[in-house]
Amino acid sequence: MHTIDLSKFSIRTDLLVDDIELQNKDISSLINTTKYNNVVLEELEITDINRNIFNRKNGFYKTISFKDITDKDNYKEVEEVFIKALHKLFNDLDISNTDSVLIIGLGNSKSTPDSLGPKVIDNVLVTNHLFELGEVEEGYRRTASFKPSVTGITGIETKDIIESLVEKVKPNFLIIIDSLASSNISRLNKTIQLTSSGINPGSGIGNNRLELSMETLHIPVISIGVPTVVDATTIVNDTFINLVKKISFDIDNLNNVKMKLVSNNIDYTSHKNNLTTEEKEKLLGIIGSLDEKDFKKLIYEVLEPINYNLVVTPTEIDFLIDKLSMLISSSINKSLHKKFNSTK
Amino acid sequence: MHTIDLSKFSIRTDLLVDDIELQNKDISSLINTTKYNNVVLEELEITDINRNIFNRKNGFYKTISFKDITDKDNYKEVEEVFIKALHKLFNDLDISNTDSVLIIGLGNSKSTPDSLGPKVIDNVLVTNHLFELGEVEEGYRRTASFKPSVTGITGIETKDIIESLVEKVKPNFLIIIDSLASSNISRLNKTIQLTSSGINPGSGIGNNRLELSMETLHIPVISIGVPTVVDATTIVNDTFINLVKKISFDIDNLNNVKMKLVSNNIDYTSHKNNLTTEEKEKLLGIIGSLDEKDFKKLIYEVLEPINYNLVVTPTEIDFLIDKLSMLISSSINKSLHKKFNSTK
Amino acid sequence: MHTIDLSKFSIRTDLLVDDIELQNKDISSLINTTKYNNVVLEELEITDINRNIFNRKNGFYKTISFKDITDKDNYKEVEEVFIKALHKLFNDLDISNTDSVLIIGLGNSKSTPDSLGPKVIDNVLVTNHLFELGEVEEGYRRTASFKPSVTGITGIETKDIIESLVEKVKPNFLIIIDSLASSNISRLNKTIQLTSSGINPGSGIGNNRLELSMETLHIPVISIGVPTVVDATTIVNDTFINLVKKISFDIDNLNNVKMKLVSNNIDYTSHKNNLTTEEKEKLLGIIGSLDEKDFKKLIYEVLEPINYNLVVTPTEIDFLIDKLSMLISSSINKSLHKKFNSTK
Amino acid sequence: MHTIDLSKFSIRTDLLVDDIELQNKDISSLINTTKYNNVVLEELEITDINRNIFNRKNGFYKTISFKDITDKDNYKEVEEVFIKALHKLFNDLDISNTDSVLIIGLGNSKSTPDSLGPKVIDNVLVTNHLFELGEVEEGYRRTASFKPSVTGITGIETKDIIESLVEKVKPNFLIIIDSLASSNISRLNKTIQLTSSGINPGSGIGNNRLELSMETLHIPVISIGVPTVVDATTIVNDTFINLVKKISFDIDNLNNVKMKLVSNNIDYTSHKNNLTTEEKEKLLGIIGSLDEKDFKKLIYEVLEPINYNLVVTPTEIDFLIDKLSMLISSSINKSLHKKFNSTK
Repeated sequence: MHTIDLSKFSIRTDLLVDDIELQNKDISSLINTTKYNNVVLEELEITDINRNIFNRKNGFYKTISFKDITDKDNYKEVEEVFIKALHKLFNDLDISNTDSVLIIGLGNSKSTPDSLGPKVIDNVLVTNHLFELGEVEEGYRRTASFKPSVTGITGIETKDIIESLVEKVKPNFLIIIDSLASSNISRLNKTIQLTSSGINPGSGIGNNRLELSMETLHIPVISIGVPTVVDATTIVNDTFINLVKKISFDIDNLNNVKMKLVSNNIDYTSHKNNLTTEEKEKLLGIIGSLDEKDFKKLIYEVLEPINYNLVVTPTEIDFLIDKLSMLISSSINKSLHKKFNSTK
Repeated sequence: MHTIDLSKFSIRTDLLVDDIELQNKDISSLINTTKYNNVVLEELEITDINRNIFNRKNGFYKTISFKDITDKDNYKEVEEVFIKALHKLFNDLDISNTDSVLIIGLGNSKSTPDSLGPKVIDNVLVTNHLFELGEVEEGYRRTASFKPSVTGITGIETKDIIESLVEKVKPNFLIIIDSLASSNISRLNKTIQLTSSGINPGSGIGNNRLELSMETLHIPVISIGVPTVVDATTIVNDTFINLVKKISFDIDNLNNVKMKLVSNNIDYTSHKNNLTTEEKEKLLGIIGSLDEKDFKKLIYEVLEPINYNLVVTPTEIDFLIDKLSMLISSSINKSLHKKFNSTK
Repeated sequence: MHTIDLSKFSIRTDLLVDDIELQNKDISSLINTTKYNNVVLEELEITDINRNIFNRKNGFYKTISFKDITDKDNYKEVEEVFIKALHKLFNDLDISNTDSVLIIGLGNSKSTPDSLGPKVIDNVLVTNHLFELGEVEEGYRRTASFKPSVTGITGIETKDIIESLVEKVKPNFLIIIDSLASSNISRLNKTIQLTSSGINPGSGIGNNRLELSMETLHIPVISIGVPTVVDATTIVNDTFINLVKKISFDIDNLNNVKMKLVSNNIDYTSHKNNLTTEEKEKLLGIIGSLDEKDFKKLIYEVLEPINYNLVVTPTEIDFLIDKLSMLISSSINKSLHKKFNSTK
Repeated sequence: MHTIDLSKFSIRTDLLVDDIELQNKDISSLINTTKYNNVVLEELEITDINRNIFNRKNGFYKTISFKDITDKDNYKEVEEVFIKALHKLFNDLDISNTDSVLIIGLGNSKSTPDSLGPKVIDNVLVTNHLFELGEVEEGYRRTASFKPSVTGITGIETKDIIESLVEKVKPNFLIIIDSLASSNISRLNKTIQLTSSGINPGSGIGNNRLELSMETLHIPVISIGVPTVVDATTIVNDTFINLVKKISFDIDNLNNVKMKLVSNNIDYTSHKNNLTTEEKEKLLGIIGSLDEKDFKKLIYEVLEPINYNLVVTPTEIDFLIDKLSMLISSSINKSLHKKFNSTK
């Protein structure tokens, strides 16, 4: 039965970078940022010391931000940075060249925006059975892979499936690929997050019971996530934030003839907001003076009772998932196996 | 090359019912509305006389509105009403039992939200070639079908493909199935529109050059459309309208203890809006006093320059397209062929 | 990597009925045969007593033979007989209405002739997770499902995956669906075998290590198999057998004018072979006097060294797998859940 | 309705090279053969002069023979030779760098062994619509593409669809890709035939009415075919031919100890057949003395009346079609557009 996996659609596995943006704190000094041509890599280790700032689990976080992945040059640069980040994470976690790995693709292969994990698995090089036969030349690592599907289809908790497989296969570490929800439109299909802090398939924060992590599985867990869906509340909130920026920008450029001519195509988002609290309230009323958290709560309360808080994905999602899964699988292959020849 | 068909994503082929809602006019008397258990059928003929009210092309319009199509009982009722509406349209257009038909599925089969048309074609009964062989028993009509794909993939105007096929096959009438954009969240995958007024594949209003209609093809054209995508501007606009309703509802029920207990799950949309213009401006500022058209224009100007005006589709789209295409193809088969035995 | 799962293609999981035909023994008295309109059900229990006759593991064997499954009437009759056989097997194995089940679809979903198992899983009703939530009304059994994929893709032995899942989920019994190889052209996609004797995924006879059975998993195992592939040796052997029958038939009807007129379309296979050994050798030489086992061995030795012993599947396989998987999944649903409403 | 396209399965569009082998004539001098590492290119022009030798239509024939296409090195070499052959054919047909082309993928995308044509179209670069907009930089040719599907699905003759499109789009030449039937096991998925002599979709020799060729469409037609299916008669015939070779080889090596040790893996096919007619008849009887044509006729008469003359495809067909379609589409792109950058 092609039941719709509702549990999956309630994911709120926010990206770390989303949190940071929400907090509006000046924590940029804590993050190691490297800028490439069209790609940015942000690295951070959360420990007991800085943990309360981020309200996240301890671990290494590496976030790659990029533009249109269907552009060839962007694609290549993202792949290079992604391989770099993966190697760094292996270092951070003391994973050696000969450590064996089980690669897990979470998600429902029949639901396009949730099919990233399974699609990556389709193109990952697997050697575990060949090692059993002694048929593997040097330069290749021991790898196995798996698609646990989703609980709505199997009737089994994803964590139970993975836990039992880990006990049987006994890999030295795990790589888990999943689709995430974003709390920011601009990151949709334009961010890859790598982290060692674990993952909660199809569930919200605080549900430890189903977590896939070093704590629950007793081996290092690298999770690779791409935000592919966003809810209506987020879309409205992002629009509201940009509405204020746009008005501020327009006011400041009222007499700027040059700007006026191009203003319809200009990226106003980097403009410093000069609206006073009074101006803001005049323009947007009491609602306009709410802080972001309260505004989001209000919008949620408007949309949820009438089933308007859709979780949505861009219409181009089929093509984006194709590109993203190809990039992630080939990067994983190159990172895991010294001798991997990328030519398909 | 899996190029993204940008032209397709700019579709704004609004539903007639969307227009009617936008106009806020009391035109319900012009529309023939039939309510079934969970399905509503709205019928209207636009002629030279009432044309200026609707700002639409002349023709018959039949709109079926329903709830969750993945529910079995809903599914069955929608199918019954759809078949009824299709038969009425045959009557309206003087289409006889023996008239031959070419069924066209517009859209890109590789892009889930745009694959409704091609998926319907996959399950439509085709007899034209059997008629050529004299192998068809009574009770079956002469039918042919086609998927013209999209211009971004073929390099050819869809209208040119269909025009040349019509010249060759010479059907008595056309049925065209397409995915539409909605200007209302609540109609997404919950409306089927049948019309005889023609369709403009992958294009906006006013581009007559590519229109598929009685005028351009010289045979009756029945188009069947389902809104499967919506843009961010629409989501924000719909939210804003409901925000006002929700606040009005909450104020009116401030002292209603019973309501308070259930208010989070209550559908407040049918509540009569009691906010005065002053209250509205106090709550929502100058922005709040804009009329809908100006508000939408503003939001569009906020989102478009920063590429935030995403055209999106619900995450469940794969399952919804499956159900919708099954329903439409089986209804078409039953409507066209007296003897069609639905059992697959 | 879309590696070709070679281990899978070496399957020789013959059907019991193939063996019986090969042995040419008069064992029909041991088999309980029921003939329906266009479907035949053959039932047999192999025990310690009759085991050496069949050279098979102990267990219940039920074989359903039918004609073209794409014919609607055939389809319905096969479904009815299949449900009957499944209920009988539940009885034979003392499986009660409330026993929980794990349903496993063996095979590679990306390889059409090997995708029967995974496709069945796509349409099987799963309730296990709802039982956990206490959300299941009476009339439904506790069911979970799984696609373990194939070792060439996961790098993990299929038996290991299933064993670890059985330990975790603790079902009362297993249902396993798999594609088989046939040693008879006429059975290709025209036979469903149900048995309680276990199954050996992707391997030949005698490899006990990987067997999925009551002995290795400690719960009843019902396996459902359909032969979807055949090797060139079998095709040649079947042709040879029929060549002898055809010549015998033609000789016996040399002077039968009526027969001559229709002989090209006549099914000669039920004709009793009247060729003497001398006639046979004259017609077919020394090769013609070989017994079937030796002939097959010879053909194998001709084809194997030059890679001509292709394992093949009919070109219609995509459509046949669609129908067969639909039939098996809906029959399983109806057999497991009293209240299952088949209407999709 | 997923009807099985029977017309398609009756294709007998043999390869030219098959004919040549069948004829056993020493015509190697007429063919221009180039041997690469693991690939062979055979070129021939059939004209009024040599036409009666080959019993084929006039035109250029280029046949590429290769081994396992899933091997990376083979894949690359085949691609190089294929591009070379395509360029030569452009030269032969006086096709210039700026001539526009319509690329047609014949076949049923839902039937794996018949999906080569449609799959190639999915990856072909299309520019025709961009030329209309004046948006194409130098180095790109004007290209359009199309999948006409099959008559069993559309109800329309494939030739009619293509003819009407050619009239509308007015390309300078056509490229047509199709799956073929082979009359030789060893060529299955291991041969690409290019020819300028036209193609008959889904039909046998002699049916001129539906032919796609220079004669019927009035522009050059390049057809690219790969044999993906074979019938049981061919499998039996190929086996029989090799049976004789194998026995001859074994007799000649009876006392060759070294050979005996390795004989099971040796390719005996190049061994010169030394069996006398008497030996052959002793071994294989009267049947053994039939010439190939009569033997094939006999086998056909054995198999056809009992529906055993299956048209089959190797079980690996999904993976082979993937590789072949990728190779053909990328080769076409590189051949048509000087500036095409193959990096996906």
